[in-house]
Amino acid sequence: MKKTIGLGLAALALSAGAALAQQKSVTVAVSIPAATHGWTGGVVYHAEETAKLLEKGYPGLKVIVKTSPNGAAQANALEDLMTQKVDALVVLPFNSDELTNPVREVKKRGTFITVVDRGLKDPAIQDVYVAGNNPEFGRVAGKYFVDNLKSGNVVVFRGIPTVIDEERVSNFEKALEGSGVKVIDKQYANWNRDDAFRVMQDFLQKHPKIDAVWASDDDMALGVMEAIRQSKREDVKFVLGGAGMKEMIKRVMDGDKMIPADVSYPPSMISTAMGVTAAHFYSNAPMRGTYVLNAQLITKENAKEHYFPNSPF
Amino acid sequence: MKKTIGLGLAALALSAGAALAQQKSVTVAVSIPAATHGWTGGVVYHAEETAKLLEKGYPGLKVIVKTSPNGAAQANALEDLMTQKVDALVVLPFNSDELTNPVREVKKRGTFITVVDRGLKDPAIQDVYVAGNNPEFGRVAGKYFVDNLKSGNVVVFRGIPTVIDEERVSNFEKALEGSGVKVIDKQYANWNRDDAFRVMQDFLQKHPKIDAVWASDDDMALGVMEAIRQSKREDVKFVLGGAGMKEMIKRVMDGDKMIPADVSYPPSMISTAMGVTAAHFYSNAPMRGTYVLNAQLITKENAKEHYFPNSPF
Repeated sequence: MKKTIGLGLAALALSAGAALAQQKSVTVAVSIPAATHGWTGGVVYHAEETAKLLEKGYPGLKVIVKTSPNGAAQANALEDLMTQKVDALVVLPFNSDELTNPVREVKKRGTFITVVDRGLKDPAIQDVYVAGNNPEFGRVAGKYFVDNLKSGNVVVFRGIPTVIDEERVSNFEKALEGSGVKVIDKQYANWNRDDAFRVMQDFLQKHPKIDAVWASDDDMALGVMEAIRQSKREDVKFVLGGAGMKEMIKRVMDGDKMIPADVSYPPSMISTAMGVTAAHFYSNAPMRGTYVLNAQLITKENAKEHYFPNSPF
Repeated sequence: MKKTIGLGLAALALSAGAALAQQKSVTVAVSIPAATHGWTGGVVYHAEETAKLLEKGYPGLKVIVKTSPNGAAQANALEDLMTQKVDALVVLPFNSDELTNPVREVKKRGTFITVVDRGLKDPAIQDVYVAGNNPEFGRVAGKYFVDNLKSGNVVVFRGIPTVIDEERVSNFEKALEGSGVKVIDKQYANWNRDDAFRVMQDFLQKHPKIDAVWASDDDMALGVMEAIRQSKREDVKFVLGGAGMKEMIKRVMDGDKMIPADVSYPPSMISTAMGVTAAHFYSNAPMRGTYVLNAQLITKENAKEHYFPNSPF
């Protein structure tokens, strides 16, 4: 159903007649991390595609996408934005510590604020919050192991010690309770491919029988698979990552037995955030609130819906 | 910003060119309670306005709005819908008990399900859930009393004993903690104007000094005000209702001292739900998830944004 439309987001747009009659002029600034990692590369791609489509769909709408290489640069970028007329800011903050005050300053000027993914320290600043569902991300992954592995030994990759990571892992383990699936080891690998490669090498040395791997992230899954390949071990039945990297979705689509599924944490959530922000200005539907997007199990059946071949991620 | 556009929701619509190229055909059914109460009257109004605007904005989209006078009738209406090709169902269920299974049957046919306001017994059925924020509804109201009454005696009106009511009232009381505002009495009045009239008569007889009333609902606020009027008492400084009934919003706009504010729980959330459902079919932005709309304090400053003179509510 969805993928019938070309690139990125097909605009959430006002019927042109009504909008022109209003002669509206709305500027939405989008402040996001630069494409320094795979996932943020996807964010940049979807933000730029969506900006074009929204501008086409909403007469009078101008969307400015600004990428920043780090938190300090993003804070500066927000300061620069304040010299312009900006009606709304959609911001995916590098981190809460550096960005909470800069976003608060933008808010004080009457700007509508939409925060994406990583929350600010003071939620009162935001008008809209769009985020993934981290507890569900762990739960969906855990359920996949229970339903498909049924019983066996699993090693678990953690990301960086954060609330997000804790929510994911604790719910993964809760989903396994009472099943025959056993977590025999878990380590942090910083959502990083190389770190995951090294951790998986250790796991393979320590554990003679590993039935499946919860890599919990597609970048880490790539490192895990490389370690398995080099070890020539054949006991690992499958690796479950997470996020929706296009290489992994392609494998799922193609029926790759090592990558039979993925769990979504889509960088295209920036498109959702931009869409509901534009709708705030071009509709009477209430939009202020918190929109938590589902973590979806991606299998061969629905993989096409999650595949963006033109995205870098 | 928002109210510049005519009636109801201004469509969340795809740019016409892109949609025509796709020759899409999408049918969205909207199943809602008939206008048996003020709030549901508002739901019907906004659903019908939004249906027109979405059909205008999204080429190939057909929206069927079906109202039902009670839960059993709504269950039957869903059964009838299944004889047609329906791609999505937006449903505001009369109640969870009677509607959970009928909606599950619709889901089994591959229909995209958006649930509004009152949840089903099994949340796994829904693709999208759009709801008001009941804890915040109480918190915002409580904060209003702390900020504006500062100290004094307050009587509290409860609705019907439900989770919603409990969330609202407990958070209201939590917001008062440590302040000089004291709840001297509270009673259920079933979100009903006549019941609230009678309860307020009792309160006025029992309590020689009432500084303000948390009616917690606009229908109840009307009953409360009638009881105060008949009593000729002059100690009550203001009444705070809730929901966003147009008569109350008008009073807020006009600077009525007895109704200085309101707290939103907008029937137009049906428009939000219909908009994000249509966006699921006409965009690549992920839309599956839970969208909890803010309970907003409505004051003279922002009342216009919440005023729909053509709505029955």
